[in-house]
Amino acid sequence: MLPQTQPTEPADLNRRLKKLTSILDVTKAMSAERDLDLLLPLILYEASKVVEADRCSLFVLDRERNQLWSKVAQGSKSEIRLPMGSGIAGRVAETGEVINLPDAYADERFNRTFDSISGYRTQSVLCVPMRDANGEVTGVIQALNKLSGNAFDSEDEELLLALGAQAAGAIENALLHEEINSLFEGFVSASVVAIESRDPTTAGHSGRVANLTVSLARALEHVHTGPYAHTRFSATELQEVRYASLLHDFGKVGVREPVLVKAEKLYPHELEGLRARFQLARKDLQLHSYRRRIAAVKLRGTQHLAEIEAEEEARLAQECKQLDEVLEFVLTCNRPSVLAQGNFERLHELKHLRFQDGFDREQPLLLEREIQSLSILKGTLSEAERLEIESHVEHTYRFLSQIPWTRTLRRVPEIAYAHHEKLNGTGYPRAIPDTGIPVQSRMMAIADIYDALTASDRPYKKAVPHPLALDILQREVKSGQLDAELFRIFVEAEVPQRAQQPLPE
Amino acid sequence: MLPQTQPTEPADLNRRLKKLTSILDVTKAMSAERDLDLLLPLILYEASKVVEADRCSLFVLDRERNQLWSKVAQGSKSEIRLPMGSGIAGRVAETGEVINLPDAYADERFNRTFDSISGYRTQSVLCVPMRDANGEVTGVIQALNKLSGNAFDSEDEELLLALGAQAAGAIENALLHEEINSLFEGFVSASVVAIESRDPTTAGHSGRVANLTVSLARALEHVHTGPYAHTRFSATELQEVRYASLLHDFGKVGVREPVLVKAEKLYPHELEGLRARFQLARKDLQLHSYRRRIAAVKLRGTQHLAEIEAEEEARLAQECKQLDEVLEFVLTCNRPSVLAQGNFERLHELKHLRFQDGFDREQPLLLEREIQSLSILKGTLSEAERLEIESHVEHTYRFLSQIPWTRTLRRVPEIAYAHHEKLNGTGYPRAIPDTGIPVQSRMMAIADIYDALTASDRPYKKAVPHPLALDILQREVKSGQLDAELFRIFVEAEVPQRAQQPLPE
Repeated sequence: MLPQTQPTEPADLNRRLKKLTSILDVTKAMSAERDLDLLLPLILYEASKVVEADRCSLFVLDRERNQLWSKVAQGSKSEIRLPMGSGIAGRVAETGEVINLPDAYADERFNRTFDSISGYRTQSVLCVPMRDANGEVTGVIQALNKLSGNAFDSEDEELLLALGAQAAGAIENALLHEEINSLFEGFVSASVVAIESRDPTTAGHSGRVANLTVSLARALEHVHTGPYAHTRFSATELQEVRYASLLHDFGKVGVREPVLVKAEKLYPHELEGLRARFQLARKDLQLHSYRRRIAAVKLRGTQHLAEIEAEEEARLAQECKQLDEVLEFVLTCNRPSVLAQGNFERLHELKHLRFQDGFDREQPLLLEREIQSLSILKGTLSEAERLEIESHVEHTYRFLSQIPWTRTLRRVPEIAYAHHEKLNGTGYPRAIPDTGIPVQSRMMAIADIYDALTASDRPYKKAVPHPLALDILQREVKSGQLDAELFRIFVEAEVPQRAQQPLPE
Repeated sequence: MLPQTQPTEPADLNRRLKKLTSILDVTKAMSAERDLDLLLPLILYEASKVVEADRCSLFVLDRERNQLWSKVAQGSKSEIRLPMGSGIAGRVAETGEVINLPDAYADERFNRTFDSISGYRTQSVLCVPMRDANGEVTGVIQALNKLSGNAFDSEDEELLLALGAQAAGAIENALLHEEINSLFEGFVSASVVAIESRDPTTAGHSGRVANLTVSLARALEHVHTGPYAHTRFSATELQEVRYASLLHDFGKVGVREPVLVKAEKLYPHELEGLRARFQLARKDLQLHSYRRRIAAVKLRGTQHLAEIEAEEEARLAQECKQLDEVLEFVLTCNRPSVLAQGNFERLHELKHLRFQDGFDREQPLLLEREIQSLSILKGTLSEAERLEIESHVEHTYRFLSQIPWTRTLRRVPEIAYAHHEKLNGTGYPRAIPDTGIPVQSRMMAIADIYDALTASDRPYKKAVPHPLALDILQREVKSGQLDAELFRIFVEAEVPQRAQQPLPE
């Protein structure tokens, strides 16, 4: 497209070569800048330089809304939206023509509103379209007030058009980059919500842990002493730890739901089966009582029947009472509280109890596996179930390792993998010592436990208030499980309070 | 960086201006090209033009492996990998210096292997580094054989460096674009695998439906008559329908697992409860028999005991036999086969049966909800359960609608939403007629049913062989549910057979 007007003097040609070269240089800088908030000021700075203008502004076309928007105008911070066709910029976007005014106020298309708000006095204006590789207008660049005091000339037009063409590509790349990133981000969040929706014990947990962990990582910025005096997280590293936190429990999709939400030592259907068996045993006691009555009548004769019945009723009542007491005891053991001293032994004695089922087959009153479950000393999970829940970390790691992370996110699997490890080597699944645990995982461990304690949605325990949660964490610090310095920062920087506020984008 | 050597003649200056302008133009084209397979030839073509070379090649630096790779060399198709430091290109990549040889064969660093393989005769060589915005070398461009027969000059060096600098940015953008796309792709696939792993009824189903649907969409390319004579899918549209297919069952995450895998009319725990109740009822019959024996002895005296016992044993045996027959009948009804004529009535008569539980409270032998479930005429699902399973489409749509799809993928939610609709308006969840069903959804409907029929992993039915699956689909076409023309193409283009081969990338 350039040059349309050919200078012939070597001095002019050289000046022009220099400017083209500078456009090439800035093009390179633009193509490397994928953050729109940094790219736009860069373009404006270079545009001002190339056409020797006092300031520039840039408008991007929003075809869906038929509007122009400007994220930055030099000297102004808020976003501006203009309808297509309105003002100089709107007209250029609509028609694709270049508008070059020596005196803006003399042209009726010029909108003085911005000047009157900002106190700026626009004199000369040069406004050119930005076009993509297909020639479609994607926005406009506007230069205000040629520094020389003259009007912008045709060379300025050509140079600004050239710069605009390069800027259009860079802006499109940055927007596309934003789009795909937000697509990925949106898919991750939606997946986490969908998966957590199956499991009320962790609904919202992943998002809260991500906020807490990122807040703690940010808080390190203000730390100038101790082991983390020089630990700082870049924007991409914060993103990495955020994804690791959001996805740390993804592996729970591989753990059976009833295990995840187990509220008592026996599953509901197990308890139902046990109750039905006690009913059958009760009926069996009654049946045996009647069989004995017949046998006694046979032996002692009808004349003793009343006596026999009285004896048997008393005995049956006693037997039923004992059976009911056993059930009562079993129900006590079934609760998630710590198993009382002596109850363990009593449970194991009960394994000898027998009754006869509907087909007169002898059956145990309590099944071996029921006694096993009821004997759980603390909580509601058997060893196998605990291992199954713990296996979610392995599942998470396997899941995350399958994903082709970009270079800046490549540690996501590793960070998530270590979030249940303890500094003293008592964690899971690998029981590695502190030297193997990334600082990101140490932060996540504090955030994870804090949220598990204070969350109000876990069926197996009540929400713990904030101060008590900190006490419990403090105990885990003292026993060498959690990082003391990170916990100190967590408390002093009031991370839980901060994390409740939405993160800046 | 440009210009370092300044020409002074207007003709030279103008030629140079023209070349810089053309670099600017190609930079714009490069920044718009995000497909590396198209970008690299574009760069090579322009590089040859700018320095007037017979051909060019381009090597990208792989820092992790300390290698250079070349996806395209003009006149060569296979990928080439070179160790850093090796040959002219390797040396330039390592040192960042420009190498300009009038006679390549006179320089010992030149590697003649490529010439001897290709039969090409390299004379002059100009090789320059490509540097990113931070000045890091990211690759090299190499121009071979200046067309004039002379050596490349210093202006060529500068121009090629300038072009290389722009190319570096474009290549980095394209690689980053590829990286994020493959990250998104990988996350989608991994999520689908993770979610399907909970539900054996659909493991692998989503991937197979995606392959079938995309194969069918590709098959349309060869159709030149009928309603789809002009329907063609671009690469991005194929990607859109692929994501819609991969994610069409994602909403099953919102359906309870036991419902998804229900194999009989009663859930396993329901059947267990029912069996326990029959045992209790059996015991109750026995107890009543003994109560009657006592009453009879009281009335008729011990001398008739043997007689009474015989009578009662016969009666009890009869009663137990009847009870066992009821259970047998219930078990028959529980199977997923079609409920036989008359069984419905018999089931409803059974609701009057009563027994006494362990506390002598009168209880129904069959619960109202059990009779309801056992009365299901076909399959294993109640109306409410069928609706729950059907609701997965709504869940899928809600889930997909939350995601900020890029412009080229924006129809993913809509396509997935309609995959259970039927052309005659008998589908779900909206029961919309053919005019509202996108062609993509019609293709997916055929793929979905075909895979559900032929898959061998559904607990509630056996895998159907290919020809029978086509017969069943044909019947659905005839009844106006599926698209006849698409089904014809599905069969004639042998889509199921094709879909088993991996898709080209």
